[in-house]
Amino acid sequence: MRIVWSIGDPHGIGPEIILKSFLKLQHSEHSFLVAGSWTAMEFYRKALDLPVKLLRVDDVSSIEETCTARSGILPVLSVAEPETITPGTISADAGRIAMKSLKAAAELCRDGVCDALVTAPIHKEAVSLAGFTDSGHTGFLGRMFQVASPTMMFFDPVLELRVALATIHVPLKDVPELIRRMDLDAFLLTLSESLKTDFCIAAPRIAVLGLNPHASDGGVMGHEEEEIIQPCIERVSNRIQIEGPFPSDGFFGAKRYRNHDIVVAMYHDQGLLPFKVLAFDSGVNVTLGLPIVRTSPDHGTSFDIAGKGIASERSCYEATQLAIRIVRNRKQTPI
Amino acid sequence: MRIVWSIGDPHGIGPEIILKSFLKLQHSEHSFLVAGSWTAMEFYRKALDLPVKLLRVDDVSSIEETCTARSGILPVLSVAEPETITPGTISADAGRIAMKSLKAAAELCRDGVCDALVTAPIHKEAVSLAGFTDSGHTGFLGRMFQVASPTMMFFDPVLELRVALATIHVPLKDVPELIRRMDLDAFLLTLSESLKTDFCIAAPRIAVLGLNPHASDGGVMGHEEEEIIQPCIERVSNRIQIEGPFPSDGFFGAKRYRNHDIVVAMYHDQGLLPFKVLAFDSGVNVTLGLPIVRTSPDHGTSFDIAGKGIASERSCYEATQLAIRIVRNRKQTPI
Repeated sequence: MRIVWSIGDPHGIGPEIILKSFLKLQHSEHSFLVAGSWTAMEFYRKALDLPVKLLRVDDVSSIEETCTARSGILPVLSVAEPETITPGTISADAGRIAMKSLKAAAELCRDGVCDALVTAPIHKEAVSLAGFTDSGHTGFLGRMFQVASPTMMFFDPVLELRVALATIHVPLKDVPELIRRMDLDAFLLTLSESLKTDFCIAAPRIAVLGLNPHASDGGVMGHEEEEIIQPCIERVSNRIQIEGPFPSDGFFGAKRYRNHDIVVAMYHDQGLLPFKVLAFDSGVNVTLGLPIVRTSPDHGTSFDIAGKGIASERSCYEATQLAIRIVRNRKQTPI
Repeated sequence: MRIVWSIGDPHGIGPEIILKSFLKLQHSEHSFLVAGSWTAMEFYRKALDLPVKLLRVDDVSSIEETCTARSGILPVLSVAEPETITPGTISADAGRIAMKSLKAAAELCRDGVCDALVTAPIHKEAVSLAGFTDSGHTGFLGRMFQVASPTMMFFDPVLELRVALATIHVPLKDVPELIRRMDLDAFLLTLSESLKTDFCIAAPRIAVLGLNPHASDGGVMGHEEEEIIQPCIERVSNRIQIEGPFPSDGFFGAKRYRNHDIVVAMYHDQGLLPFKVLAFDSGVNVTLGLPIVRTSPDHGTSFDIAGKGIASERSCYEATQLAIRIVRNRKQTPI
């Protein structure tokens, strides 16, 4: 199996966590490849004095041989090279490299050259300065693979906790209307299918959180539960195992997530707040519903510590392990 | 010092957690009193076979003597008596007793007969069936003491974690507009004052969370941070110690709350989700900004386990200890 890491923003901690993850993984049975900038990878390898040998590759066709052949050598496909490397700074050039690397890495997976994509973090502002309009990885990959709404899911391998988001990077004021307008039935049915194929869970148990405080307390605080969420759960409940809507604070406070394979949050912070408190640094971000396998660490570029050698590779390492697990699971599951 | 417990919904776990808390506290230097129903307290005392002797009191003027005199005896002021007691059921009669007890207990504090009020949980639907329109304790007490917006705060004595809510029991869709319209400056200045008087913190360090995911990432997802929250923080920052707006998930994930005395959440679940995950069963609810001291456990009536003897008194006990602490602090702080 071959995993490709997209380098992310070369001014962030991406190159460092890739190098450190590779050190933990180089003696595994799998092959690895970085899609990005050789200069950037070499810059951090030298600066942090990490015992990795990098092999510059300029041509995709030469990858097969070199990548699988030598243990301890990490091939880097030079997709774009930066003018300079200045850790911790927002730059259009760094944003351009991040996005070109992501595209190249996704294409390698689409074309079967690699089996899974693990993306290092990009910086929204740098990407925007470089002229790209996608709000992030998930949006870019959805457009590339013509999947209208890939699902953003977070996974903690320590707790086997999964949290999926019904809405993602939108202003809070838009969330209630988006919940009313989205096809929540299709979202939940697709989610159940993804858990079968990607996690080998035969009959996934889904928990759905309410939108309002106390899940509206029977309509006292909001009506989305009785008008949208509850009817949806009833409609799909003859096809999938599903319960809710639960009041989010009590649900997580009482550790009820232990009784379910996945928790569906209605909005970003409702899912990420408990997830980040519970998962510490082992949390992983997964995109469900794409034809390719894609995972990523659940943190950002961490410009404040870039180039200092103190970034934890834990989440990137776990993301890579999860990518390997999903590739295996997909092969085992009859579709 | 004398603490009064309002009985809460007599069909919930209120009487049980009061009795169990008293067993832990009866040999303390303080006096205790229940405002509620003698029948209900006696029903649970018998059913759960708890070694407490209850003394029925019908007249407030007789309380002083009996309440302070005998250790091991818990006086119960009979405010209203129920027709029947059926644990775990929603009833107008139970809602009526809960609210009449709350009013009587608050009056005892207002009149100086008791020093602090600890409220056992009420059930919103039962209270509504009984014809009361207040959405909960905080609203009722605000109206009674003519405080427009008392602040709902949660406190965990184990972590010394404090979380205050800028908006409370409202539909999520109304939150952004309420944040725009409320006097956030006054809210934060009052909060700082309350921490001085009630917790003896000389210069409280306040952290404010953003409303939108990633605190809007510089306006990419919503504008309340740049238009409302950031300008407010700048205005008050010459008078109080304040930082923010922080992205809520990263703030709690990185345990940044340790650097602050209190965290201000913009809405209910943003504050309660991380609080309930972190505080387990030691969390306490406090109402700031009232002339009386009022605390309560941070859980509800738990009808599913009412009368079974398995309810944890931890939160009620901690709420009582905190009430004692705040009374002491207020006496020490020059206003």
